[in-house]
Amino acid sequence: MKKIRLFTPGPTMVPEDVMLEMARPMDHHRTGEYRKITEEVIGLLKYLFQTEATCLSIAGSGTAGAEAAIVSCCPPGHKALVVNNGKFAERWRDVCAAFDIPHVTYDVEWGFGGKPDVVEKMMADDPKIDTVIAVHSETSTATLTDIEAVAKVTRKRNALLIVDGITSVGALPVKMDAWGVDVYITGSQKAVMLPPGLAFVAVNDRAWARIDSGKSHALYNDLMAYRKSIKDFDVPYTPAITLMRGARFMLRQIKEIGLEKIWAETTLLARATRAAATAMGLKVYSQQPSDSVTAMLVPSGIDEGALRKTMRSAHGLQLAGGQGSLKGKIIRISHMGYVDRFDTLSVIGGLELTLRSMGHKVELGAGLTAAQKVFEKRE
Amino acid sequence: MKKIRLFTPGPTMVPEDVMLEMARPMDHHRTGEYRKITEEVIGLLKYLFQTEATCLSIAGSGTAGAEAAIVSCCPPGHKALVVNNGKFAERWRDVCAAFDIPHVTYDVEWGFGGKPDVVEKMMADDPKIDTVIAVHSETSTATLTDIEAVAKVTRKRNALLIVDGITSVGALPVKMDAWGVDVYITGSQKAVMLPPGLAFVAVNDRAWARIDSGKSHALYNDLMAYRKSIKDFDVPYTPAITLMRGARFMLRQIKEIGLEKIWAETTLLARATRAAATAMGLKVYSQQPSDSVTAMLVPSGIDEGALRKTMRSAHGLQLAGGQGSLKGKIIRISHMGYVDRFDTLSVIGGLELTLRSMGHKVELGAGLTAAQKVFEKRE
Repeated sequence: MKKIRLFTPGPTMVPEDVMLEMARPMDHHRTGEYRKITEEVIGLLKYLFQTEATCLSIAGSGTAGAEAAIVSCCPPGHKALVVNNGKFAERWRDVCAAFDIPHVTYDVEWGFGGKPDVVEKMMADDPKIDTVIAVHSETSTATLTDIEAVAKVTRKRNALLIVDGITSVGALPVKMDAWGVDVYITGSQKAVMLPPGLAFVAVNDRAWARIDSGKSHALYNDLMAYRKSIKDFDVPYTPAITLMRGARFMLRQIKEIGLEKIWAETTLLARATRAAATAMGLKVYSQQPSDSVTAMLVPSGIDEGALRKTMRSAHGLQLAGGQGSLKGKIIRISHMGYVDRFDTLSVIGGLELTLRSMGHKVELGAGLTAAQKVFEKRE
Repeated sequence: MKKIRLFTPGPTMVPEDVMLEMARPMDHHRTGEYRKITEEVIGLLKYLFQTEATCLSIAGSGTAGAEAAIVSCCPPGHKALVVNNGKFAERWRDVCAAFDIPHVTYDVEWGFGGKPDVVEKMMADDPKIDTVIAVHSETSTATLTDIEAVAKVTRKRNALLIVDGITSVGALPVKMDAWGVDVYITGSQKAVMLPPGLAFVAVNDRAWARIDSGKSHALYNDLMAYRKSIKDFDVPYTPAITLMRGARFMLRQIKEIGLEKIWAETTLLARATRAAATAMGLKVYSQQPSDSVTAMLVPSGIDEGALRKTMRSAHGLQLAGGQGSLKGKIIRISHMGYVDRFDTLSVIGGLELTLRSMGHKVELGAGLTAAQKVFEKRE
C-alpha cells in the first residue's frame, strides 16, 4: 500500500470527503435541487474571485474556460496583446491564432513576469490593441505577473484585461474588482481541490459589453449561451453534475476558512519550500516566483526523469517536471489546496533521500530544518 | 429517505460501484498508471463504437464532442447537410452557423427520422455538399434515423458522415465500420452509465484525411490536438481523471456483458414501455421510435409540468419533459444503461398512480400487465 502524495500543480490532492460527496447518487440537472447547487456555486465563486461579476462554470478543463473567455471577448475588429512568458501564455496565443484573432505577443524571458510598463508602451505604440491576455501565475515556470499593476495600465487605456488565474485563484491574493480585471479564469483541479473537469470564469460588465458587440466563432465555449441560461440557474449544455456538487462542497469550505488565511498559508508553504531548496543546494528557477508552485533547477549531473521516477516509485511523491524548453531542467512542487506543512515536509524529506541516492551532496535534514524554521517563525 | 430513480435520457442512473471507483484517491495524468487507463479506454471505445477508428475522449459534454467533430471535419471549402429532425440536430446546425460552415438543412417533421433517399436527392441537387451530419437517436423526440441507410448514400457519394450517437451508442445497434460512418460521437452520461463530463469521439481515416486538409477555428475542440497526444496515450489538456477512471470501469463491464445483450435488453424495455403506454391510453409520440428513450404524449387535460412534478415529489421518479415546440406536450423515459425491468415497472407504476390522481382514466395495473407480458414473452 504505497501512499501517493500529489505535488503536481494540478491535479492537486483532493480531500477524501469531497470524493465521497461526489459519489452520492446521481440526480438530474433540470431540477430544483440542482438549481440550488448552481445558485450557491455562483455566489461562492463571487467570493473566490472577489467580484460582483457574472460567475459561470463550463464542463471542461481550464483551457476550455480560457478559450471561451478569449474567443467570446474578441469578435472581429479587436486586437489582443498576449503577455507571453511561458507554456500557458503560449497556449492563449495559440487560441488567438486558431480563431484568427489579430494579436501581438509581448515575449518575456521565461522565469520572469510581464512588466506593466512594457505592456503600456506596446499599447501606446499600437493603438489597435484593446485586449490584454496575461497569466497571473504561469504554472510552467512557477512565475508571478503583477496583475494589479497590469490592470492599472489596461484600465487607463480602456482595454479589456483577461487573466488566466488557473494556478492563482484560491491560492494567491486575487481581487478581481478591486484590481480592475475584466475576465478571470480558473480550473477545478488546482486551489479549489477538485478533480479536473470544470472551468470557472468570471466576466464583468465591461467584458459583456464587448462580448455583445460582435459575433465570435463559438458554441460550446460561447459565454453568451452560459449567461442566457444562468438567469434561471441553468446551463446551456449538460453540466458535470458530480463536479458541480463537489464545487459547492469545497467552495463552502474555502469561504468558511477564509481566503486571507488560505493565501497566507500557501505563501508560507512556498517560502518553506524555497528555503529548503536553498538549504539542499537547489536553485529556485523563477526570478519572480509564484507562491502557488515552486520550480527548482535540477542540479547538473542529476537526471530529472530519474529523479522524479524515484520520487514516485520509492516514495509515492508525485512531482511535475518542466514543459517545453524546460523539459528535463526543472522539477515543480505545488502549494495549492489540500496540502499542508507536513505534506511539504514529506516532499522535502523525499527530495533529500532521493538526491543523496543519486549522488547529489545534501546534508540529511538540511532542507527539513530550513522549512521548519520558516514554519516556526510564523507560529 | 426518498429513493430517486432517474429516467431522464441523460444523465441516467449511475451504478453505485462506479461512483466509489471514481472516489478513489486522485492521481496525476502524466503517469504510467494513467496512460494505462487511457490505453484501455481507447481499446474499449473501439468495441463500443464497433470500429477500428481512432477513439478519443474530451473533457466536456457531448456537445463539446459534436462541435469538435463538426468543426474539425469542416475546414473552409466544405459544405454540410444537416438532417434536422429535432432539438439536437438544430444544435449541430447552430454549430455550423456559429463557425461559418456553409450548410443546408434537410428539415424533417419532428417525430420522424431522416429519409436516406431525400438525403441522396439533396446531395444530387447540390454537389457542393460533401458532409452529412445526422442524429442517430434524436433525444428530443425519441426518434430513430436509419444511419446504416444514410451511410450507404454518403459512401456512394463519397461524402463524410458525422453521426451524433449520444443516445444510441451503447444502447442501440451501432456498427460504425460495417455501416461506413466516418465520425461517431457519444457522451458519458447516457448508455455508458457515468456522470456527465466526458465526450467520446471515434474518427476514421477518411475523416482524418479531411481534418488534415485544412485549418479550422478550434483549439480546445481541435481533434488534431487529441490525435497528436494519443500516440503516447496522452491528452493535450488536463483530462477529467475521475470520469476516465469511471469510463474504464464501466466500459469493461459493457464488454463483459456484451453489446448484443445490452442492445436486446434496451429494446425489450422500450417495447414494454410502449406497450404500457398504449394500455394506459397514452400515445407514443414518435413515428419512428428509438429504443433508447420513449416519448409519450401527455393526454389532453393533464398538465405536463404538474405530472412530472408529482412523479418526482410523490414517487421520486424523475422524467424528462419536452424541449422546444414539444415543451409541455410530452414526457420522456430513458431505457439506457443502469435501468432494468423492475425499474421500468416502477416508472410505469408511478405513471398509473399519478395519472389517476390527476383524473386520467387508467385501469390500475393495466400498464404494468402490458409490460409484464412483453417481459414474459422474452424469457
